[in-house]
Amino acid sequence: MQFLSDNAAPVHPRVWNAMRAADGADTPYDTDALSRELNARFSALFGRECAALWVATGTAANCLALATMVQPHGGVICHEEAHIEMDECGAPGFYLHGAKLLLAKGEGAKLTPGGIADVLGGITRGVHQVPAHAISITQASEYGLTYRPEEISAIAGLAREHDLGLHMDGARFANAAAHLECSAAEAAGPVDALSFGFVKNGGMGAEAIVFFDPEKAELVRWRRKRAGHLQSKGRYLAAQVLAMLDDDLWLENARAANAAAAIIADGAAERLVHPAQINELFVQMNAEERAALRAQGFAFYDWGDTCIRLVTSWASDPADAHALGKAIASL
Amino acid sequence: MQFLSDNAAPVHPRVWNAMRAADGADTPYDTDALSRELNARFSALFGRECAALWVATGTAANCLALATMVQPHGGVICHEEAHIEMDECGAPGFYLHGAKLLLAKGEGAKLTPGGIADVLGGITRGVHQVPAHAISITQASEYGLTYRPEEISAIAGLAREHDLGLHMDGARFANAAAHLECSAAEAAGPVDALSFGFVKNGGMGAEAIVFFDPEKAELVRWRRKRAGHLQSKGRYLAAQVLAMLDDDLWLENARAANAAAAIIADGAAERLVHPAQINELFVQMNAEERAALRAQGFAFYDWGDTCIRLVTSWASDPADAHALGKAIASL
Amino acid sequence: MQFLSDNAAPVHPRVWNAMRAADGADTPYDTDALSRELNARFSALFGRECAALWVATGTAANCLALATMVQPHGGVICHEEAHIEMDECGAPGFYLHGAKLLLAKGEGAKLTPGGIADVLGGITRGVHQVPAHAISITQASEYGLTYRPEEISAIAGLAREHDLGLHMDGARFANAAAHLECSAAEAAGPVDALSFGFVKNGGMGAEAIVFFDPEKAELVRWRRKRAGHLQSKGRYLAAQVLAMLDDDLWLENARAANAAAAIIADGAAERLVHPAQINELFVQMNAEERAALRAQGFAFYDWGDTCIRLVTSWASDPADAHALGKAIASL
Amino acid sequence: MQFLSDNAAPVHPRVWNAMRAADGADTPYDTDALSRELNARFSALFGRECAALWVATGTAANCLALATMVQPHGGVICHEEAHIEMDECGAPGFYLHGAKLLLAKGEGAKLTPGGIADVLGGITRGVHQVPAHAISITQASEYGLTYRPEEISAIAGLAREHDLGLHMDGARFANAAAHLECSAAEAAGPVDALSFGFVKNGGMGAEAIVFFDPEKAELVRWRRKRAGHLQSKGRYLAAQVLAMLDDDLWLENARAANAAAAIIADGAAERLVHPAQINELFVQMNAEERAALRAQGFAFYDWGDTCIRLVTSWASDPADAHALGKAIASL
Repeated sequence: MQFLSDNAAPVHPRVWNAMRAADGADTPYDTDALSRELNARFSALFGRECAALWVATGTAANCLALATMVQPHGGVICHEEAHIEMDECGAPGFYLHGAKLLLAKGEGAKLTPGGIADVLGGITRGVHQVPAHAISITQASEYGLTYRPEEISAIAGLAREHDLGLHMDGARFANAAAHLECSAAEAAGPVDALSFGFVKNGGMGAEAIVFFDPEKAELVRWRRKRAGHLQSKGRYLAAQVLAMLDDDLWLENARAANAAAAIIADGAAERLVHPAQINELFVQMNAEERAALRAQGFAFYDWGDTCIRLVTSWASDPADAHALGKAIASL
Repeated sequence: MQFLSDNAAPVHPRVWNAMRAADGADTPYDTDALSRELNARFSALFGRECAALWVATGTAANCLALATMVQPHGGVICHEEAHIEMDECGAPGFYLHGAKLLLAKGEGAKLTPGGIADVLGGITRGVHQVPAHAISITQASEYGLTYRPEEISAIAGLAREHDLGLHMDGARFANAAAHLECSAAEAAGPVDALSFGFVKNGGMGAEAIVFFDPEKAELVRWRRKRAGHLQSKGRYLAAQVLAMLDDDLWLENARAANAAAAIIADGAAERLVHPAQINELFVQMNAEERAALRAQGFAFYDWGDTCIRLVTSWASDPADAHALGKAIASL
Repeated sequence: MQFLSDNAAPVHPRVWNAMRAADGADTPYDTDALSRELNARFSALFGRECAALWVATGTAANCLALATMVQPHGGVICHEEAHIEMDECGAPGFYLHGAKLLLAKGEGAKLTPGGIADVLGGITRGVHQVPAHAISITQASEYGLTYRPEEISAIAGLAREHDLGLHMDGARFANAAAHLECSAAEAAGPVDALSFGFVKNGGMGAEAIVFFDPEKAELVRWRRKRAGHLQSKGRYLAAQVLAMLDDDLWLENARAANAAAAIIADGAAERLVHPAQINELFVQMNAEERAALRAQGFAFYDWGDTCIRLVTSWASDPADAHALGKAIASL
Repeated sequence: MQFLSDNAAPVHPRVWNAMRAADGADTPYDTDALSRELNARFSALFGRECAALWVATGTAANCLALATMVQPHGGVICHEEAHIEMDECGAPGFYLHGAKLLLAKGEGAKLTPGGIADVLGGITRGVHQVPAHAISITQASEYGLTYRPEEISAIAGLAREHDLGLHMDGARFANAAAHLECSAAEAAGPVDALSFGFVKNGGMGAEAIVFFDPEKAELVRWRRKRAGHLQSKGRYLAAQVLAMLDDDLWLENARAANAAAAIIADGAAERLVHPAQINELFVQMNAEERAALRAQGFAFYDWGDTCIRLVTSWASDPADAHALGKAIASL
């Protein structure tokens, strides 16, 4: 019973079907009919004109999106535990040509206007210091916490005031929207660009970068190619993304993953380090207890010495989730 | 009848099957069982110990391979019409942090020791000039011409003498090996790293970077992640590559593509700009003739004003090839 | 008798005096009174509002100027023998984060609208190819040839038409203006930024980057610092530049250098590879003749196998120039 | 009475003299006799073979030194208030092609083995995280505190154990050595490269990068040129450095600066935030008190809301220092 990562889940059957169907599409790169559908489909989803590009990974999506906002001598304000800071092997430094991450603090890996203001307040030395050019928030955060629309608005206000770009890392955007029970547009709020994740949510190797100022996508067309991310058979990436949008599969899958986590959370309630909102749970647990769970066949990652991380996916079996919740409750 | 690009061909059924089977593999990134098979499989193929990493595109493969050889202040000697120079939107400049391509001349987009020596001979100004750190050759070249083993050896000798790395862009390595009727080891010769292409030859989105000094792969593990090319569901890329190696599907597909091109070449013999060796043909043709072919349903790219490019693939219907050859002969 | 390089000349006494006087100025970086004078002084010289920054070298000046025009994925059209291509160890690749030099041909290392159009005409593959973002011309060229105002205008017209920045490398801008007998404004023409050289012309280690759109200088303030070129005792660089502008020392020195070259050219007229315009001469000469000159105490660089390069400076002794001209005439 | 910065001090007369004398040296870049003396002179000073290169600024010196130790995907462990982190506008990100600064904590801006170990202990995610490639310490630290030889040794031991390069930012290395009353070799300890500062200590625009593995300097010769830091009249930089070494002017000037600070410290003893060791003092002081001092003609920078920074130089008048000490004591 696997609760290691939503990356470990299989590809959703409807995604497989769409990919197979793409065998028929036959022009290379992103000139095929499927790729050309993306702008319209995301514009419909978000209710305003946007441009969307596929790319294979969240790391590439985040960095390419930020490249529209940040000069090489600038900085990106992000949480000190953000994925771009902790888990991307310095990819922002590579894609942004040496730009810097300016680290803010905040509960549950969420940024707040106050935390951002603290970073901005420390930038006082003119050309001797890296200036902030953008803010990046993660919906949901590394600890599985969502930003409510009014929280995003407050941060966006600060961004506008300081003339900063605003990016949202949405590796688990679907799970966030499902939890918030709001529209995609509300879950994204007034950000400039969104890395809309599908891989963890039933896709194989396709995320979308959504630009709410469609012109910004033009720069990224060049940068994506230059980064070796313009796949020659891009139709198979487009097919994945479109399948995830069809009949809101993205939401359906996210709801399933969240529901499985909620089942576990029921059994682990007193041990939860953060409120259970999406498909990630951080559960206090000592070494002996971990061993006991593993002996029962549950697989998961340790998160430091006193905590474990449990991740469910669209494919998690509710029965397994129940078993795990019960096992934790019985520890 | 499509002769635009081998990128436009569908994914081979055996590759599809292998990908579906990978749904069962469940650890992320390249920790899955399939990814861990690559080193052994390529070592067996090449008859010497090597390390191999999957990556989605040839551009990424080329640039990551070169990153093991070239410092940011160095240069890569390549043909003035090489893919890395003409078609990758400056990706080598990005991945190599500003390193430079040092352009050599040569018939049919092939490098020769003489052409390389001309470049080296022009580097005389010490720190004022970009020094050469590597040579990159393309097997087969942009014009579909192969390097025979002794040609590669001669270039490798020059590389050793000048302490330069030697990289092979093998986007159509399979087609070259099929044409040369030699082993993979002979078709690669003593290069340091090979970008082994599968996407044009029946894959979907997986190439292999093969390092004949396995330690060099370690650097690329970091650089691949940093470039956003470490896909979280890497098992699907590994599956593609392994399927292509199984029972020499890579050779089988390449032979089919080459054979289709040979059929066309029969009809176009007097018009061929370069000898027909692999699955690319460059055929002299004026505007009127092009229009005539297109009117008969043949799709292809213009190559300047007096020439067209025809590309076959593993999926080309020999009947279509016959039809095209005949149509050209009848012009 | 030294004709190796104008870099080998001493610092002009009036520059020394100005530097000594700067001991009194006492705020660091470029906040001192001298540095703050630059904008006004260059605005007066060029007769339009401009912003000017000091920097220690022509390489840094060229690259920082280009950074205002060229994105990392873009290219700079320059002559295939331009200094930025041949003599800066890939500095443009470093400062422009991997951007590419797009090489044009042209007599005497000068660009022409035709040569530029040839480069532009070869850029046809959309995102697969590096797009041109700027043109860089050198006043005077690597072979000592000047651009007349109407030549610059023609190139500037092409730049505007294609939305390209236009940069002038003016390492020997003073010598060019002196030869052209025109104003600084006419010798610069409608370029966007000028690397105005002083080091070869009597300075020690200070060039100016002049931005004819003053806002562009703001970006370079950051980039200069980031490149380690914001010297903490910048007042001594400002002092050099101001001394060169005072009473047109820049022109006076350039005229002296040009005059010395003209004297030599008189004796070498039939051997000149390019017309003698400024303080550089390229003179056909075989090995035996070179040896004969060197035996007479003349120092100079070989320029390939059949040619030598002679460079005079503000400090060249006319008697030495006469002696050299006579010696060449007598060969 | 100026206590703003040692950057604001004039150039020392013996440095001026040496520069004037360099007018005679006449080969460009670093091929002149003075530049070629540096290796031997620093080898003599440090009692072991080393290679030394001049460069105009400390920022360039730090970044070029680090370039010999740090790959673009790696990181540099430094103090969270180090100059490379706080005051160089992201220059390390530029020169190291996106490498990251990994921030450690420590009293008085000094690194400790414990602080470094904390950073190393947090790097656990393999290729997903930036690996440490080097450690950079500052002698003396941003708060004017020196590392005793045994402290450097302890850090060097950790560096060796983890295969990390060790760099020393010695912007005020002379002041540190003067305070420690030890040799240059002891003050540097077993670091791999030292940015040996002269500009703050009586020079104009020349620092030295000293490589204790002389081969490492070779890489930097290329990188220095590529960064536009190979000045064509480098003889004037070499002259400055040599003048500072002659008869230990570097130590003489540092002692004078330290002595002036000690005088002030006497009057400010109870207000000192850090022990007075070199020529920088951080003194607790409220707004009213600052105003009072300024009204008496003392110039200095605020350091946050409750503290000021006072910096003396080789040129500080002891009488001014007495006056300031007395003025502070009288507050």
